[in-house]
Amino acid sequence: MEVWGGKSYFKVEFVDNPKKIVKSWREKGGLVVHLTMYGKMIDDMIDEITKASKNFTLPLLVVIGSEKVEGWYYYNSDYNIGIGNQPHSEVSALAIFLDRIYKGEELYIHFSDAKFYIIPQLKGKRVVKTDK
Amino acid sequence: MEVWGGKSYFKVEFVDNPKKIVKSWREKGGLVVHLTMYGKMIDDMIDEITKASKNFTLPLLVVIGSEKVEGWYYYNSDYNIGIGNQPHSEVSALAIFLDRIYKGEELYIHFSDAKFYIIPQLKGKRVVKTDK
Repeated sequence: MEVWGGKSYFKVEFVDNPKKIVKSWREKGGLVVHLTMYGKMIDDMIDEITKASKNFTLPLLVVIGSEKVEGWYYYNSDYNIGIGNQPHSEVSALAIFLDRIYKGEELYIHFSDAKFYIIPQLKGKRVVKTDK
Repeated sequence: MEVWGGKSYFKVEFVDNPKKIVKSWREKGGLVVHLTMYGKMIDDMIDEITKASKNFTLPLLVVIGSEKVEGWYYYNSDYNIGIGNQPHSEVSALAIFLDRIYKGEELYIHFSDAKFYIIPQLKGKRVVKTDK
């Protein structure tokens, strides 16, 4: 994030008690979506989630576990959503989920604190230095 | 793949000389797409790639490198494509690229050699055993 920006956009944190985060998120009126291959297909649920989150104006917590996820999360999330119903990469699941809710617009986000930005090229690389 | 299938669909291989693969792929009439944050935005290029690949009937090789990718690949791929022009996960880049070219249909692929398949649920898990 030092070079390409996003410090005001992303925060990485380790937490001791993820269940507490899920509980308080919902108590404060936020929505919790658990991505799992056992869930309902994203395409069947995206409209309902958009409505329930008031067009994503409510805070949205996305829970993704690795291989073994405690049953608790299935029953304490608002939605269990499958990005397909096959086992695959959690990072891909998050990427496709975000792509659906941002409708592809996420690919155009630029961070004001970036020190460089890219001019897209068919061949080679073109990078421009900002005034940061 | 033992449990969820896909053995006839996926093959994982290590190769000594990836450049040789790229060269012979193109010599045999296939198309090589290199996913890189420096490339042209996927949304601007998807129509051209669809046409050049004859609606993906030509064999398509997708090249994705980690942090440092040799300049050779930029100049020996048919297309350098950005899934956004920001650094992020290679797995996400591949997921979004495939989602674009399959138009979301990839999420509905089921493998005939699967021993189990999932009945999507809003809560909990439902898995059915096949006759395999």
